[in-house]
Amino acid sequence: MRKKLKWVKMGVRYSSLSLCSPTHQNHQSFRLATFTCDTKQKSNFSFYPTDKDRIFNTHYRRVSLFAITQFSICGLHSRIGNLKCGRVKEMETRQGIATKEALNLQSVDQDLVQKMVYDALVWSSLHGLVVGDRSVQRSGKVPGVGLVHAPFALLPVSFPESHFREACELAPIFNELVDRVSLDGKFLQESLSRTKKVDPFTSRLLDIHSKMLELNKKEDIRLGLHRSDYMLDEQTKSLLQIEVNTISSSFSGLSCLVSELHRSLIIHYGERLGLDSKKVPGNSAVIQFAEAMAKAWTEYNNARALVLVVVQSEEHNMYDQHWLSSVLKERHNVTTIRKTLAEIDAEGELLPDGTLLVGGQVIAVVYFRAGYAPTDYPSESEWRARLLMEQSSAVKCPSISYHLAGTKKIQQELAKPNVLERFLDNKEDIAKVRKCFAGLWSLDDSEIVSKAIENPELYVMKPQREGGGNNIYGEDVKETLLRLKKDGTDEDAAYILMQRIFPSVSLTFLMRDGICHKDHAISELGIYGAYLRIKEKVIMNEQSGYLMRTKVASSNEGGVAAGFAVLDSLYLT
Amino acid sequence: MRKKLKWVKMGVRYSSLSLCSPTHQNHQSFRLATFTCDTKQKSNFSFYPTDKDRIFNTHYRRVSLFAITQFSICGLHSRIGNLKCGRVKEMETRQGIATKEALNLQSVDQDLVQKMVYDALVWSSLHGLVVGDRSVQRSGKVPGVGLVHAPFALLPVSFPESHFREACELAPIFNELVDRVSLDGKFLQESLSRTKKVDPFTSRLLDIHSKMLELNKKEDIRLGLHRSDYMLDEQTKSLLQIEVNTISSSFSGLSCLVSELHRSLIIHYGERLGLDSKKVPGNSAVIQFAEAMAKAWTEYNNARALVLVVVQSEEHNMYDQHWLSSVLKERHNVTTIRKTLAEIDAEGELLPDGTLLVGGQVIAVVYFRAGYAPTDYPSESEWRARLLMEQSSAVKCPSISYHLAGTKKIQQELAKPNVLERFLDNKEDIAKVRKCFAGLWSLDDSEIVSKAIENPELYVMKPQREGGGNNIYGEDVKETLLRLKKDGTDEDAAYILMQRIFPSVSLTFLMRDGICHKDHAISELGIYGAYLRIKEKVIMNEQSGYLMRTKVASSNEGGVAAGFAVLDSLYLT
Repeated sequence: MRKKLKWVKMGVRYSSLSLCSPTHQNHQSFRLATFTCDTKQKSNFSFYPTDKDRIFNTHYRRVSLFAITQFSICGLHSRIGNLKCGRVKEMETRQGIATKEALNLQSVDQDLVQKMVYDALVWSSLHGLVVGDRSVQRSGKVPGVGLVHAPFALLPVSFPESHFREACELAPIFNELVDRVSLDGKFLQESLSRTKKVDPFTSRLLDIHSKMLELNKKEDIRLGLHRSDYMLDEQTKSLLQIEVNTISSSFSGLSCLVSELHRSLIIHYGERLGLDSKKVPGNSAVIQFAEAMAKAWTEYNNARALVLVVVQSEEHNMYDQHWLSSVLKERHNVTTIRKTLAEIDAEGELLPDGTLLVGGQVIAVVYFRAGYAPTDYPSESEWRARLLMEQSSAVKCPSISYHLAGTKKIQQELAKPNVLERFLDNKEDIAKVRKCFAGLWSLDDSEIVSKAIENPELYVMKPQREGGGNNIYGEDVKETLLRLKKDGTDEDAAYILMQRIFPSVSLTFLMRDGICHKDHAISELGIYGAYLRIKEKVIMNEQSGYLMRTKVASSNEGGVAAGFAVLDSLYLT
Repeated sequence: MRKKLKWVKMGVRYSSLSLCSPTHQNHQSFRLATFTCDTKQKSNFSFYPTDKDRIFNTHYRRVSLFAITQFSICGLHSRIGNLKCGRVKEMETRQGIATKEALNLQSVDQDLVQKMVYDALVWSSLHGLVVGDRSVQRSGKVPGVGLVHAPFALLPVSFPESHFREACELAPIFNELVDRVSLDGKFLQESLSRTKKVDPFTSRLLDIHSKMLELNKKEDIRLGLHRSDYMLDEQTKSLLQIEVNTISSSFSGLSCLVSELHRSLIIHYGERLGLDSKKVPGNSAVIQFAEAMAKAWTEYNNARALVLVVVQSEEHNMYDQHWLSSVLKERHNVTTIRKTLAEIDAEGELLPDGTLLVGGQVIAVVYFRAGYAPTDYPSESEWRARLLMEQSSAVKCPSISYHLAGTKKIQQELAKPNVLERFLDNKEDIAKVRKCFAGLWSLDDSEIVSKAIENPELYVMKPQREGGGNNIYGEDVKETLLRLKKDGTDEDAAYILMQRIFPSVSLTFLMRDGICHKDHAISELGIYGAYLRIKEKVIMNEQSGYLMRTKVASSNEGGVAAGFAVLDSLYLT
C-alpha cells in the first residue's frame, strides 16, 4: 500500500511540537517535519559504546522535552509519557521554521514499525552490527561474549543531496590541508604555544612533536584516515564543520552496516513507506580505509610486517575496529595485532634502522584507536610508547603532526583570515573550505568575548582537548567567560569559541538495547577521507564513505542531561 | 611452517590417554589420535542453546575423565586439572584401537591457539554465528540483545571422505523413504499402536493422524527438511544411523557458518597447522533449505501468502532460525512470520476451502521449529493449533505423517527384515540404507532383552518420545529391563533398544562463552536432506549440507554428567 505523501512548507514554533501535531507527508522523506532548534554541537553525540566518541557522554537520562514512546519487541507494552524539563521556555524563544516535511512517523502504523524493529534487530545480529554490552562483564575485553546490537536509527535521516555532495567534495581538500599543515612544524608549535601552557595533554603531544623536529624526522609515507564532521545549520541552510578527526576516526566499520541495514529495510518496507532504497548512498568506508592501510603497508615493503592497532585495554566498540582488521585480512592478507600503549611500552623495541618491533614482530603501520585522550596516558609508560612509535620508521596513522593538525585550536587558527592561503593553492578549494567554517575564535579576541557574554546562546565554548563531553553552552558560557576575564590567567587559551549551529530536528525511531524510542533528534554527518602520500607522490586522496549520527534533541542545553545517540545513515532529498 | 606429519597405526588402551601421551602426526588430520571409546549416543549432544536439540541436555558439569585445559582470551590464566570420575575402570575394560593419527594438538603452540581462538570469536561476532545467552534476560525473546557466540569447535574434526560420501548418498534415499512411509497410514498406526498406549504424546499425534485418515486428507505438496544423524563406529569402521529428524531439523543456518569459520581459520593458519581449507566440504544447508521452502511456497501459488515459522515462546537458538528466514527473504522474497502454537490457536482460522489464515494472513507453508516435544503442548490450545494447521491446505513441514515417520519406533520397525522392501524399490538403495542401520529392537524381542541384561554396556534404551536427554545407558539398562520384565506392563512399548555405537575420541578445542576448553570429544554427523514433491512429481530431492556436532567424551556413562557439545564441521581424510 503506497502512501500518498506531499511536500508542504510549514511555519511552526518549536514549542508546538507534539506527538499529536498534524503533519503533512512527502514521498521522498520520512521523518517528521524538521524544525529549527538550538542545540549543543558534537559533544553530546553520546554513542553508548564507541572508542573515540565514547567519551562524548558519560550520562544519559531518558529525559525529553517531547513525548517519548517506547515499545518493546516482546512487543506487548507501550508507554507514552510526557516529560518536560525546565528549559522548554528558553527553547521556545527561538523561532522554529519548518523547511520541509517528511513522512509522519505518527502515521506509520505500529504494526509496521514493530515489524521493522524486529527485522532490524535480527539483521544487526546476523550481520555484525554489534557492540559490547557494558552491562555484561568481559564484553569490552573478550570478543564473542556480551554482544548487543549497536544503537541505530530505524530509518535514515533526510539530507539534501547538494549538501551531501558538498561535504564529500571537501574530503580530499581537507586530506590535503591536514597534510600541508602537518609539514609546517613551526605553525603547529606557534599556534599551540598558549594552549601548551594550560593543557598538559597538548603539551606532551607538542613535546613529542618538538623532539621529532629536533631530530629532523621525516615521514616519507604519510597515511591519513580522517573524518570531518558537519551539521546542517537550519537557519542559514549551510553545511558547517564541527571538527576534523585525524586520530581514531571511528565507525568506518559499523557505519557501512547501518547504510546496508537501512537499504535492506527500505527494500522490504519501502513501498509502504514511500521510500526508495537507492536514495541511501552507498557506503564503503571500511573497504576504503582498509585499502589505504593496505597500500601504506605495501609501501613499507616488508611482507612479514604487521599492522599494529593501538587499543584501549577495554573497548566496547571493538567490533567496529575488528571489521577494519577483518577487511584488511580478507581483502589484502594483511595481519593486524592489537596492543595497548602499556603493552607497546613493555614489548616494543626500536632497531637502529628505525624498525619498530612489538613482541618481536615488525610493525609496518601503527593505527591508533587509542591515544587521543588524556585518560589514555595514565602513566609515563604510555607516553614512552607513543614516543617510541613516533621515532620509528613505521607509518603512523596518525603521526604526531597529523594528530596536532586535527586539534580544535588549529581548526580555529585556520579559520583566521589569510591562513588557509598559506596551505592551499587552489582558490576554489580555499573558498569551499572557508564556506564550511563556522565562526571560530580564540578567547583573546575581546570583541567576540563581549558578544558571547551578551548572547551566550549563540556560542559554544570548546575545550582544546579531544573527545568532547566538555563543551560549555548557554548561561555557562557567559559565567565561564566572566570568570576567565576576572581571573586574567592564561586559562582562556584552553578554550576556543565557536558559533553555535542550529540543526533541524526530526522525529526519529532510535533503537537501543532492543527497545525502540520515538523522539526528536538532530543529526551530524561525518565524511571519511583516506589519504596516502609517499614523499611527493599522492597515492590516494579520496572521500571514503560517511557516518551519520543522530541524537535525541531533548535537554541539550548546558549539558544538563544528554540524550543518547545512535548510528544512522542518510536518505538523499 | 609446514609440520611433517605421518600416519601411524597404534594400539593403545583407553586408560593410557593423557595430555602427555606421545602421539604421531598426520598431515591430513589434526585432532589427537582417535581411540575407541564406548559412549552415549545422540542424547548427550547437549548444545547449550538450541531449539530441538536444546532438550538433549539439562545439566553440564565440566567433569572430565581426562585433563581439561581452559584458557581465557583475556588470555593470561591457564588452568590444568586432572579430574577423574568413578567410571574410568569400566571404560578401561574396552580395548581402544587407534585407527589413525591426527595433528597433535599438544604440539600446537599456545600462542597460535590463542590467536586462532581470538580470531574465531571475532569472526563469529561479525558473521552472525551467535545464539541468545541464557544468562541474559530477554535473550530468548528479543533479537539483538544478550548475544553470545554459538559454541563451536576451533578446528574441524577429521572424517573419512568415503564415509562422508556414503552419508551424503543416503540423504535422497531417506528423503524418499520418509515420503513413502508417510503415505502408508496403516503402517504408521499399526507400528505405533503399542507405543500409543504408553506414550500420551505419540498418542495425541496419532489421534491427529487418524483424523486426517478419516478425512481422507491428501497432502499434494509434500515438503521434507530432514536431517539424518550418524556416528562412525570405530570398531566396525561403519557409519551407523542414530536417527532421522523429520521435524525441526535445526542448525541449517549456523552449521554453514561453522564450516565457513573453519575454512577461514585454515586459510589463515593452515600452513602452520599443515591443513588445507579445501578439505572442509562446502556447506550450503541454509541456502538449500530456503530454496526448498521457496519452491513449496511457489507451488502453493499465492503471492501474498507467508511462511509461518512455529516457534517456542522463548528461543535462544533463534538466530539459526533467522538465518533461514533471512535467506528466504533475500533470495526468494518470501516473508516469514513467527508464532507460537498458542498464538496460532488464538489467531488462526481455517477458511472453507482449507486456506489457513493466521492474524488474517494467508499461510503457504508451516515450518515447525516447535511442536516436537510434549512440553511444547502445555494445554489443549497447542493441540488445537496443531490440528488446525494439519487440516489446512498449507504445506506442512512436516505433516503429521512425516512427523510420525521420523519416530524412533518407526526407525526400529524399518530395521526389521523385509520392511524396507515395502517402501523402496531399488535394491541398491535398500542395501545402502540397511547397511547404516545399527541394531534396533523392540522390547518384545525376549532374546535381545536377555542379551541386553547380560551385556548392558552394548545397548542404549531409547524412549519413544522425541528430543533426547532421556536415553538409558550401562547398568541402568539392565535395571530398567529387569524392572519392566517384572512389572509385565505395556511400559516396554515406550522404549526401543539400540546397539551402542563406539565412535572415535579425539582431542578437541571446544569454545564456549569465550573460553577455550581442551578435552577429548566425540562427533556426530548430520546430513540435511530437502525433499519436495507435488503429487507424483518429485521437484527436489537433495542432500543439502551437513552438521557436525562434537561433545566432550567424558562422563558419558549412565547419564551421570553430560559434557557439553559444540557445533563443528569436518575435514575430509
